[in-house]
Amino acid sequence: MKLFRTLISLEDALKTILSYVKSPEIEEIGFDDALNRVLAEDIYSPVDSPPFDRAAMDGYALRGEDSFSASLNNPVFLKKKSSGGEIGEGEYLPIQTGMPLPKGSNAVVMLEYAKESGDTLEIFKPVTPGKNVSFRGEDVKKGEEVLKEGRMLKVHDIGMLASLFRTKVRVYKKAKFGIISTGDELSEPKESFDSKGERKIADVNSYVLEALVEKIAIPYRVGIVRDDYEEIKNAITSSLMLKNCDALLISGGSSVGKRDIIADVVEDLGKLIFHGVAIRPGEPTGFGVINNKPVFVLPGYPVATISAFEMLVRPFLYAMHGMKEERRKIFAGAGKKIPSAVGRTDFVRVRLICTKNEYYVEPIRVSGSGILSSMTKSDGFVIIEENKEGIEEGEKVEVNVWEW
Amino acid sequence: MKLFRTLISLEDALKTILSYVKSPEIEEIGFDDALNRVLAEDIYSPVDSPPFDRAAMDGYALRGEDSFSASLNNPVFLKKKSSGGEIGEGEYLPIQTGMPLPKGSNAVVMLEYAKESGDTLEIFKPVTPGKNVSFRGEDVKKGEEVLKEGRMLKVHDIGMLASLFRTKVRVYKKAKFGIISTGDELSEPKESFDSKGERKIADVNSYVLEALVEKIAIPYRVGIVRDDYEEIKNAITSSLMLKNCDALLISGGSSVGKRDIIADVVEDLGKLIFHGVAIRPGEPTGFGVINNKPVFVLPGYPVATISAFEMLVRPFLYAMHGMKEERRKIFAGAGKKIPSAVGRTDFVRVRLICTKNEYYVEPIRVSGSGILSSMTKSDGFVIIEENKEGIEEGEKVEVNVWEW
Repeated sequence: MKLFRTLISLEDALKTILSYVKSPEIEEIGFDDALNRVLAEDIYSPVDSPPFDRAAMDGYALRGEDSFSASLNNPVFLKKKSSGGEIGEGEYLPIQTGMPLPKGSNAVVMLEYAKESGDTLEIFKPVTPGKNVSFRGEDVKKGEEVLKEGRMLKVHDIGMLASLFRTKVRVYKKAKFGIISTGDELSEPKESFDSKGERKIADVNSYVLEALVEKIAIPYRVGIVRDDYEEIKNAITSSLMLKNCDALLISGGSSVGKRDIIADVVEDLGKLIFHGVAIRPGEPTGFGVINNKPVFVLPGYPVATISAFEMLVRPFLYAMHGMKEERRKIFAGAGKKIPSAVGRTDFVRVRLICTKNEYYVEPIRVSGSGILSSMTKSDGFVIIEENKEGIEEGEKVEVNVWEW
Repeated sequence: MKLFRTLISLEDALKTILSYVKSPEIEEIGFDDALNRVLAEDIYSPVDSPPFDRAAMDGYALRGEDSFSASLNNPVFLKKKSSGGEIGEGEYLPIQTGMPLPKGSNAVVMLEYAKESGDTLEIFKPVTPGKNVSFRGEDVKKGEEVLKEGRMLKVHDIGMLASLFRTKVRVYKKAKFGIISTGDELSEPKESFDSKGERKIADVNSYVLEALVEKIAIPYRVGIVRDDYEEIKNAITSSLMLKNCDALLISGGSSVGKRDIIADVVEDLGKLIFHGVAIRPGEPTGFGVINNKPVFVLPGYPVATISAFEMLVRPFLYAMHGMKEERRKIFAGAGKKIPSAVGRTDFVRVRLICTKNEYYVEPIRVSGSGILSSMTKSDGFVIIEENKEGIEEGEKVEVNVWEW
C-alpha cells in the first residue's frame, strides 16, 4: 500500500533537470533587436572609443597653458587660427561638443567663460591642459572586453554595441516551450459557464506560464486538453513533433489521483524521471523526457505551478539560454516568524514593507495553493530551505521580487 | 555677457514638466495582452473564487467526524455513496483536486491515507472538517477589490484576471514618442566610416531612447538629422503632425553652442519653457511645447541623455500612462565617500557589491558623460540631491537598479 509517495529533494530534482540541458544554439541578430537577449560571445572593442580626442563641452579649443593667467578682471586674449596646421601659442578655434580636438590644442574653454568678437577671444578663466576633453580610448580601449558572454543585454548595452559599430551580435536562440493545461474542470476564461449553466474553473495556468516564459523563450500555448489518455497523448506528440517544441510544460493532473494520466503518457512515450519533489507548494511536480526533449509535469493549482516554475523551470530556462546572471535579490528582515517544516523547501509569498532605510517582509497568510490572491498581494517570494525550521523574527531573508 | 546660463532646479523642472501631462487616454484590450500595461480601472471580483467549496487534494470526500477514530492500526471503514442526495454518515465519494465537494461532505482524506477496495474505503488517519478543502470565496470574495487602477500588470495579475473570467480590461493607451538624434558628427552604426574614410561617431542615443521608451510607450525612431535649422524643423513638424507623435525626445545640440538650433526651432514653432537644469550629467536639457505637445531637448552625450531620461523623462512617461507605482529600490551602504557639489543633482552610476546579507555600492569612476562604459559596468544609479554635499562612507543610499 502506497501511504506516502516518494519525494526527491529540490536539490536532486534540479541536478536531474539541469543534466538534460543541451548546449544552446546560437544565432546572429541585429544589435537593435538584442534587448533582453542573452549574449553568446564576449564583445571586445575593435577600436578606441571615443575614436579621437574630442571636445566634451561647447567652447574654444586652445593650448591650456595660454589661459593660465586668465581671470574675470584680467582676461587673456587669443587669436583665431585662420589657416591649416597646428594650433600654436596664442591661438584658438571654436569647437562643439563631440568634435575632434584640433591638432596642437589640448583643452577646451567653455563658452560661458569666454567671449568671441570677430577673430579675437577673451578668456575669463584658466583651463588646465586636458580640461573638457574626452581622450581617445577613454571610454573603451581597443581590444578591451566590454560585454561578457551569458549577459542578458540591457538598454545601455545596446547603446554600447551601437557606439562600437557592432551591428550584428551572436545571441542564444530562443527555445520554444509548448504549454498545455489539462483538466475536465477547466474552461477558457471567456466561457464563464458550461452548458448546464454551472460555474467552471478558468484555465489560469496556460496564461501565467505563457507570460512567465515569454521574457526569455517563445511560448506556444496549446490551451486546454481534457483528462483523457489519447487526447493528452495527441497534444504532447503534436506539440513535440508537428510544432517542434523544444520542451513542454504540462499543468494539471500531476498528482497521484486517478486523473494521473500525464505521468502515464510521459512514461509510455518516453521516460518519467521523477514525480514528486519536496517543495511546497508544487509537491506533485514531475519531470520526464520524450524524444530527448524535457517535459515538465506541473501541478494544477496556479500558485503551485508558479512555485514549481520559479524553483525548477526557471533555472532550466536560464541554463537552456546560456544565462550566466542571477536574479537580483533584496535583503529584508523578517517582520514576524515564518514557520516551515523541515524536509521540504517552502515558497513563501511575502509583502515588502519599507521603513526609512530598510525593508522587512511579512508572509502572506495562505491556506492553499489555489489562492492566487496570495500572489497579487505579494511583492515577491522567499525560499526557505529544506533543512530550515522556518525563519525567526528579525532574521535576514533574500526576497526575489516579482518584477521591476 | 552670458557667463553662466540660468539653471533651474530638478524639482522645478519636474514640476513644470508634470504640469503638461494630460489625462491619459483609455482603451479596452484582452486580458492576455495586458502584461506590463497600466490598469485604468479598479478590478473587483464579480464572483467568489473559488466559485464553490472544492477539494484541495486528490482523495475521498467524507464527513470529517466519521474519520475521528481512524489510525494506521485501527482503520475506519466507509461505504461508497451510490445514488444521489447528500453524503450521509459513514459514506464517501472519490474526489479529485479542484472538483466541487459533494453535498453533505466537509473534508477530504488524501489518497495516501486511505485504501479503496470496491465500494469500501479504509481510512488510516483522521481528518478534521474543512481539511483539504478550498472554501468558496477563500481566494477572493465577491465584490472584493483585487487589482488597483495605476498598477502595471504583472504575470500573476494576468492569472488573476483569467481566474475571474475578466477577458477584457481597461488600460491606459500607449503614447507615441518620436525620437530624433541630431548632429553632423553622427552616423548610423552600420556606416562606420564616412566618405573621406574618417571615423565618425555612432548614433547611440536614438537606440538607447527607443529601448528606454518601449517598455511603456511606443517609440518612433526618426534617426539622425543634420545640424540644420530647416532639417530639424521638418523632422519636428513631420513627427508631430504627419506621424502623430504625442511627445518628442530630441537629443544632441542642446547646449548653448552654435549648434543650439533645436532650442531655436522649438521656440519658433512653439514655446521653449526651460533650457538648462541643475543636474549632472544632463545639464543642457531643455523642455518646450509645440502644438500642446511636450518636446524634450536632450544632451548629445549618451550618459547625459540617460541621466536626463531617468530624472526628467521617466516621471513624465509614467504620469502620462497613469502609472501609480514607483520603481523598486535597493538600499545599500556607500563603500566609499561619493563627492558631489551642492547646487546640482547628481546621477551617480554605481556597482552593487553583495556581502553576506547586505549590499554596498561603489561609484564608477568617470571623467565625462561620453563614457558609456560607466553604464555597462554599473548595476544602477544613485541620485544625490541638490542640497547634499556628497555621500559619506557607510551612509545608506537608494539604488535604482537597471533591470532585473
